[in-house]
Amino acid sequence: MSIVFSPSLRCQLPVLLALLQGIFVAIFIMFVTYEDHSIRSPFHNLTEEKEDHLTAIFPSFKDVHLMLFVGLGLMLSFLKLYSFGGIAFNFLIANFAIQWSLIVQGFFYHYKEGKISLRLENVLDAEFAAVTALISAGAVMGRTSPVQLLLFSALEIPLFVVNDWLVNKYFHVIDIGGTIAIHIFSCYFGLGVAQILYQPELRKTHPKEATNSNSDFLSFLGTIFLWIFWPTFNSVLAKTEAARLHAIINTFFALSSGTITTFALSSLIDRRGRISLVYLQNASLAGGVAIGIIADLISPGGAFAVGCLAALSCILGYQYLSPFLARKIKMQDQCGIHNLHGIPGIIGTLSSIVVILIGPTNTYSTSLHEMLNDSNLGIQSPVLEVFGNQNTWTAKDQALGQAAAFGVTFGVSLLGGYITGLLLRLPCFVHPSKDYFFDDQLYFQIPEDNKNKSTTNEKLHQHLLTSLKHI
Amino acid sequence: MSIVFSPSLRCQLPVLLALLQGIFVAIFIMFVTYEDHSIRSPFHNLTEEKEDHLTAIFPSFKDVHLMLFVGLGLMLSFLKLYSFGGIAFNFLIANFAIQWSLIVQGFFYHYKEGKISLRLENVLDAEFAAVTALISAGAVMGRTSPVQLLLFSALEIPLFVVNDWLVNKYFHVIDIGGTIAIHIFSCYFGLGVAQILYQPELRKTHPKEATNSNSDFLSFLGTIFLWIFWPTFNSVLAKTEAARLHAIINTFFALSSGTITTFALSSLIDRRGRISLVYLQNASLAGGVAIGIIADLISPGGAFAVGCLAALSCILGYQYLSPFLARKIKMQDQCGIHNLHGIPGIIGTLSSIVVILIGPTNTYSTSLHEMLNDSNLGIQSPVLEVFGNQNTWTAKDQALGQAAAFGVTFGVSLLGGYITGLLLRLPCFVHPSKDYFFDDQLYFQIPEDNKNKSTTNEKLHQHLLTSLKHI
Amino acid sequence: MSIVFSPSLRCQLPVLLALLQGIFVAIFIMFVTYEDHSIRSPFHNLTEEKEDHLTAIFPSFKDVHLMLFVGLGLMLSFLKLYSFGGIAFNFLIANFAIQWSLIVQGFFYHYKEGKISLRLENVLDAEFAAVTALISAGAVMGRTSPVQLLLFSALEIPLFVVNDWLVNKYFHVIDIGGTIAIHIFSCYFGLGVAQILYQPELRKTHPKEATNSNSDFLSFLGTIFLWIFWPTFNSVLAKTEAARLHAIINTFFALSSGTITTFALSSLIDRRGRISLVYLQNASLAGGVAIGIIADLISPGGAFAVGCLAALSCILGYQYLSPFLARKIKMQDQCGIHNLHGIPGIIGTLSSIVVILIGPTNTYSTSLHEMLNDSNLGIQSPVLEVFGNQNTWTAKDQALGQAAAFGVTFGVSLLGGYITGLLLRLPCFVHPSKDYFFDDQLYFQIPEDNKNKSTTNEKLHQHLLTSLKHI
Repeated sequence: MSIVFSPSLRCQLPVLLALLQGIFVAIFIMFVTYEDHSIRSPFHNLTEEKEDHLTAIFPSFKDVHLMLFVGLGLMLSFLKLYSFGGIAFNFLIANFAIQWSLIVQGFFYHYKEGKISLRLENVLDAEFAAVTALISAGAVMGRTSPVQLLLFSALEIPLFVVNDWLVNKYFHVIDIGGTIAIHIFSCYFGLGVAQILYQPELRKTHPKEATNSNSDFLSFLGTIFLWIFWPTFNSVLAKTEAARLHAIINTFFALSSGTITTFALSSLIDRRGRISLVYLQNASLAGGVAIGIIADLISPGGAFAVGCLAALSCILGYQYLSPFLARKIKMQDQCGIHNLHGIPGIIGTLSSIVVILIGPTNTYSTSLHEMLNDSNLGIQSPVLEVFGNQNTWTAKDQALGQAAAFGVTFGVSLLGGYITGLLLRLPCFVHPSKDYFFDDQLYFQIPEDNKNKSTTNEKLHQHLLTSLKHI
Repeated sequence: MSIVFSPSLRCQLPVLLALLQGIFVAIFIMFVTYEDHSIRSPFHNLTEEKEDHLTAIFPSFKDVHLMLFVGLGLMLSFLKLYSFGGIAFNFLIANFAIQWSLIVQGFFYHYKEGKISLRLENVLDAEFAAVTALISAGAVMGRTSPVQLLLFSALEIPLFVVNDWLVNKYFHVIDIGGTIAIHIFSCYFGLGVAQILYQPELRKTHPKEATNSNSDFLSFLGTIFLWIFWPTFNSVLAKTEAARLHAIINTFFALSSGTITTFALSSLIDRRGRISLVYLQNASLAGGVAIGIIADLISPGGAFAVGCLAALSCILGYQYLSPFLARKIKMQDQCGIHNLHGIPGIIGTLSSIVVILIGPTNTYSTSLHEMLNDSNLGIQSPVLEVFGNQNTWTAKDQALGQAAAFGVTFGVSLLGGYITGLLLRLPCFVHPSKDYFFDDQLYFQIPEDNKNKSTTNEKLHQHLLTSLKHI
Repeated sequence: MSIVFSPSLRCQLPVLLALLQGIFVAIFIMFVTYEDHSIRSPFHNLTEEKEDHLTAIFPSFKDVHLMLFVGLGLMLSFLKLYSFGGIAFNFLIANFAIQWSLIVQGFFYHYKEGKISLRLENVLDAEFAAVTALISAGAVMGRTSPVQLLLFSALEIPLFVVNDWLVNKYFHVIDIGGTIAIHIFSCYFGLGVAQILYQPELRKTHPKEATNSNSDFLSFLGTIFLWIFWPTFNSVLAKTEAARLHAIINTFFALSSGTITTFALSSLIDRRGRISLVYLQNASLAGGVAIGIIADLISPGGAFAVGCLAALSCILGYQYLSPFLARKIKMQDQCGIHNLHGIPGIIGTLSSIVVILIGPTNTYSTSLHEMLNDSNLGIQSPVLEVFGNQNTWTAKDQALGQAAAFGVTFGVSLLGGYITGLLLRLPCFVHPSKDYFFDDQLYFQIPEDNKNKSTTNEKLHQHLLTSLKHI
């Protein structure tokens, strides 16, 4: 696999972006339209409904933006020489992925009579899809070019849409916060790509792979933004106000207990009792990932317990599992997405099975019962034939459905990641040279102070030209 | 008083956190539940009310989070060697204090038939209580260990709840923004603790007690976040929409005039007319503290005047009163909470008395009259016997009630602070050694660049071990 | 023109601020009042309306604050030695301008029976006016004293109010997001001032006019905050929910396509394909400026196209037009407001004319038709006599109205800027000496680390005293 910086960034990035954006603009002009409100306007009830609707959904829209662009952007800027790469490529990929998801989901779900009718929820749905691309990219951050990242998300989004449809249609998965559909999917897709793009020289820490106190501080600030708006993320798809209320409070509780667990365990692991910034930046959020799947169904105390468990497993993952997997199966997980999204996602899936199986005995059974009854309405679903062999959809069937949704998502995403990785390895796409992993100066006109002092600007240019000659 | 770093952080912090979090989880599982909406669901009106309710309260919930975790977190990160201590311990204490307040307030106010029924307002109330702990901790920031801070807030929260109940029950205090209940209380509680923990070596500026331009900049950014969401804080408890509207605009006006006053006075005080960053970071917010008590009752012009007065008194406090009190009564107020919360709180209390006494002659009397009439409904209140000696609750009684509420809060908080301070001084709890005041490297695994260059990592470890031997 | 730092900052700034704030407080006390809700309270419908109203408008109020104080404040902090000047003077001028706009707009629009009745929308309107002052100030940032900036905005606000009234009254301008009224106006006002304050020594880059990676990073973070809340800005004045919905989504789309265009074009322009941080910080927002004028009227595809075009023109402006104008007409545009507000504003105006002329053939014609019909209700408008010479207001008339509004705004603002510039040049006001352009240490008590190492504190003081002697 060639990792010299052979094809020029200047040739590929503008062309790819212009091409994709041009196609998207054309598609939007040809196919996408707003609902015609003039037809509706006589029906005042509909108009009113619409108003309430906008008041309810616009704040969530902004909250999700704060999470994606500020929260995740800052969080990914933890490397001192790659802070612009962290925040700016997140910004680029997010924008690309949202537009692309709007098109894919539009044709998949909302295409009617030659047109896709657009509502604000569609944009919100697209942003949830985009999250997947942003999480996955964390696995290969700093050692892939923006060209590769664009192709990466171009392939991931359609697969996400299909898998999301699959687990809802066939397994009636209960997963309000996207623990399986978003976190598990993006984690194993990203790890699949990373596996194929395995770079042996990264077995040792790369000299540029370092933080400084400012980048660590801003990254933690990003964590806090994600933390604050996570309750919105987990509650926005709730169908009743009670479910929404429970999802908000439970997510907050899981995050809160996860945070305290993070401080406790991190201090315990260090021989001098000091807190690790990496754990603080990541494990504080593990509760939000795990609780997502049952945020509307669990009791307050249960939410606390899940949060503790998630943070615990996340830190143990960083401390023991990641190094082990790095040795055994050559896993290279740059941002530790396996620890923040994979493991807490598994904890969440297991919790959902426990809640579903023992749930009906407690207060929150009502909504669960309603969900199961809702599922019974769709009794012709093929899944009943596979799992149920009976006429009703019981809690046990639902528990099996959760497990199956996890399994399918795991398989689909890992396989998709492998295939995507193979494509990204093709030498025709821009790869950063290993000397310029985690280095902003390859991609940005950065001020002098942040440049790697050993390489002057001209030396870099010279070096790149030389590399080109050797191909 | 022993201030060597004797008991190990690693022994105490994880144990304390795990213990407290474990107890909290158990309490939540045993006692805390959501309202059973299935019972309610036939009554559609109630459901509707609920919906409006969530739409109204969830945004405030997020605003308060932005204030606590981003605003206050950034603001407290002004020391260059203690920026993680500022933001991360604020994060830790906030989470702990919110959980603890939920339990204390739950048993105090909402315990019924063996269960505490949880609503989103309860969480919001708990966050107001937690604010108290965060403000108070400012007085001893950087010279107390997280173990001490946890115990600190564990003791402060119950006292806050009792005092809050006291001033409402017995003095019918008018105080929508918590000027007395939150700001005065937390200020004098914190100063009480600081008084007992008096450290003579801090009479001179500690070598590590310094800012740099980045920490000052981010701290000011925190001030701006607090500034933006303060109108939410002061208006969230308003009972009518008119009161809420006035509270929002008046708080904004008081902050705005306070900010301009800060620029003016700060420039006037410096011999070259330059603005002090400390004053900018703090006095810009003084208007918000002072106006809180009458945010719903005052006229726009009055709000402007109170804002000017509050900023003025805050800066004069920093410039003249704090150094005086430091000499005379050995006050050690690390973040200047006396200037930002104490003095503007007194200005606010006095303003409230003026407004109540002369209020009925102007437009905003209506709501005040209603409040006084509301108080008359609770005419069996013992306070009438003490203060009123009559059957009606007049403006004069209310003015006396305000003064009494201030006095009681002052006494209770200062006394509580003294007792808490005595406990925290016990040598069994982890104390930072004076060489490591204001130093992140004692508590965090920070990157090399931000370490105090004179002490290498190993030297620190050696030093700590040596300290331990001398006990 | 004298640019030594002759009149003392300490004499002028506090006096000016205290004077202005004092006058404002007096005006508010004498003239400004809240509506008397006690009169209204029997009419429950009105009360209800009010409630919905506050729920709808308060979030926008906070969003605009996040844009003004956090977004714009951070964005303007891109110079490493002038980061406090960027964020703090933005904070000062914003507060001053909002108060002043409340008074000017209050007397202009809401003065009745000796009183100005205050609503939350009035504050929002005042903030839109204040935006103008903040944008304009970008043209002379770092080379004007706060005293000059205060006078600057004191003169700009009334002219903005008059021009805004003019283009609405006489040209029925369609401009929901203020592309003409705010962006075009503030751009040419600012450039007018900058033209008069022309400083020959700035033809070469000033030694202090440099960024570092931290200031560039935080500035980009500011861009992201502006980006996130721009849909609020462009939609807040919408009169129907459909219009509001379209304005939100279209603004988001224009920003998104503009961002991708920025990455593409910026990479194309650089010989090594690297992204320029300046373009990223600015051109990412160009779509929001351009789409404002037709955010409620255009189709989704159209919004995408306008966004691409706006970002394209913005970058070409930075790359080619600004250097050309600097040489030819001595334009000195510190923050490039011509490229971010002027050129995209022109693109927006042209787009609005195209949409209005060809609009009626597509779906969004309904609202446009309604607007034209609304205009027909005001048929006695003198503009019909000038433009229309007929009894109905057609799309062609509206297109002419848009062009005329642009022309008038351009002329009024440029002329106003010239006059303001002449006043600011008067030697009686504090001017920074050219050695202290872009230098925080003239205005702030900054920590040692960020001082220009060549000048010690005492040297600076000495230098200032010497300057004073020479007058």
